[in-house]
Amino acid sequence: MYSFPPALANLIEQLSSLPGIGPKSAQRLAFHLVAESQERIEQLVETMVQAKEKLHTCRECFALCDGERCDVCADAERDQGTLCVVQDTRDVFALERMNAYRGLYHVLGGAISPLDGVGPDQLHLRPLLERLKHAAIHEVILATSTTMEGEATAHYLAKLMRGVEDLRVTRIAHGIPIGGDLEYADDLTLARALEYRHEMA
Amino acid sequence: MYSFPPALANLIEQLSSLPGIGPKSAQRLAFHLVAESQERIEQLVETMVQAKEKLHTCRECFALCDGERCDVCADAERDQGTLCVVQDTRDVFALERMNAYRGLYHVLGGAISPLDGVGPDQLHLRPLLERLKHAAIHEVILATSTTMEGEATAHYLAKLMRGVEDLRVTRIAHGIPIGGDLEYADDLTLARALEYRHEMA
Repeated sequence: MYSFPPALANLIEQLSSLPGIGPKSAQRLAFHLVAESQERIEQLVETMVQAKEKLHTCRECFALCDGERCDVCADAERDQGTLCVVQDTRDVFALERMNAYRGLYHVLGGAISPLDGVGPDQLHLRPLLERLKHAAIHEVILATSTTMEGEATAHYLAKLMRGVEDLRVTRIAHGIPIGGDLEYADDLTLARALEYRHEMA
Repeated sequence: MYSFPPALANLIEQLSSLPGIGPKSAQRLAFHLVAESQERIEQLVETMVQAKEKLHTCRECFALCDGERCDVCADAERDQGTLCVVQDTRDVFALERMNAYRGLYHVLGGAISPLDGVGPDQLHLRPLLERLKHAAIHEVILATSTTMEGEATAHYLAKLMRGVEDLRVTRIAHGIPIGGDLEYADDLTLARALEYRHEMA
């Protein structure tokens, strides 16, 4: 019987350990890579090595960047009084894409999840509290995910910051997504959308 | 506005050029890779380089392997009189998995597809005809895909081999997959399944 040569089996195994890549996609990717030109493979490998080498987290907000501080923290024209707390650098990019938020960010690096062994100590919480002490921040917007873990993290943070003077702590709104049909929203989203209803302007 | 640092943007671009990886998955993968340990990245990179270096096509059947000839061609106990023609090495693995076919293979490297610029000259057709001349092959099973391109390729090959003496040219059966519900089969499959109906044993 003909089985995968070791070099191929290794590649498939390595690829299938990546997130979102199942055994079938790993196979397809491996065959594709082996059929690529030497040049393309070297290019891909070099890009990976470069990315790993150059990227690290901003020393203030912990967003992924290639300098000491990220572009947002380095921009003096951003509103230094508002801090948006997110789980991941990807959330920063998502919020920046809409080009409407002008404040700063703080990337937690995840959400509290006891089942995954992620407690408050595994997140960038202490630096967040330090920032609140030393900077003139008047509002913290909790923009963690609307998942169970994200909600728990938001509640934990809100409790933690209750003692900070003159600080407004807000949570992003839950509701029906724009363009979303009520019919397709789950019960919890629907319940929240009703609960947080507001007066029409 | 905060946009992706170049090292990250490059990695995302490279990853999204791979098959089956859209912009969203490429982003997720890139963030995952950057967060991985230096060691894991080096391991992944090394596996890719090794796979590219060690793997090439079998000089007889064009299946991907790490020696001069693949395990099937090198196995004297395989039935040297039957040749199964497939599009891709992945098809060889799929057929080998069922552990029932005892003959040899010939990997075409694709199917005839004028729209994609793949004509007979881009496939390993000439070596196939050479094999028929020099080896004692009495049956060629055309196991190209049941897609339009695979069908066209099978018809082209059948026509090409019509002149070869004492050669049986067969095509794998079309029909309803095992466990497949008639209701979910497309019309063409259903039509073929009816057309190729056979007596109950």
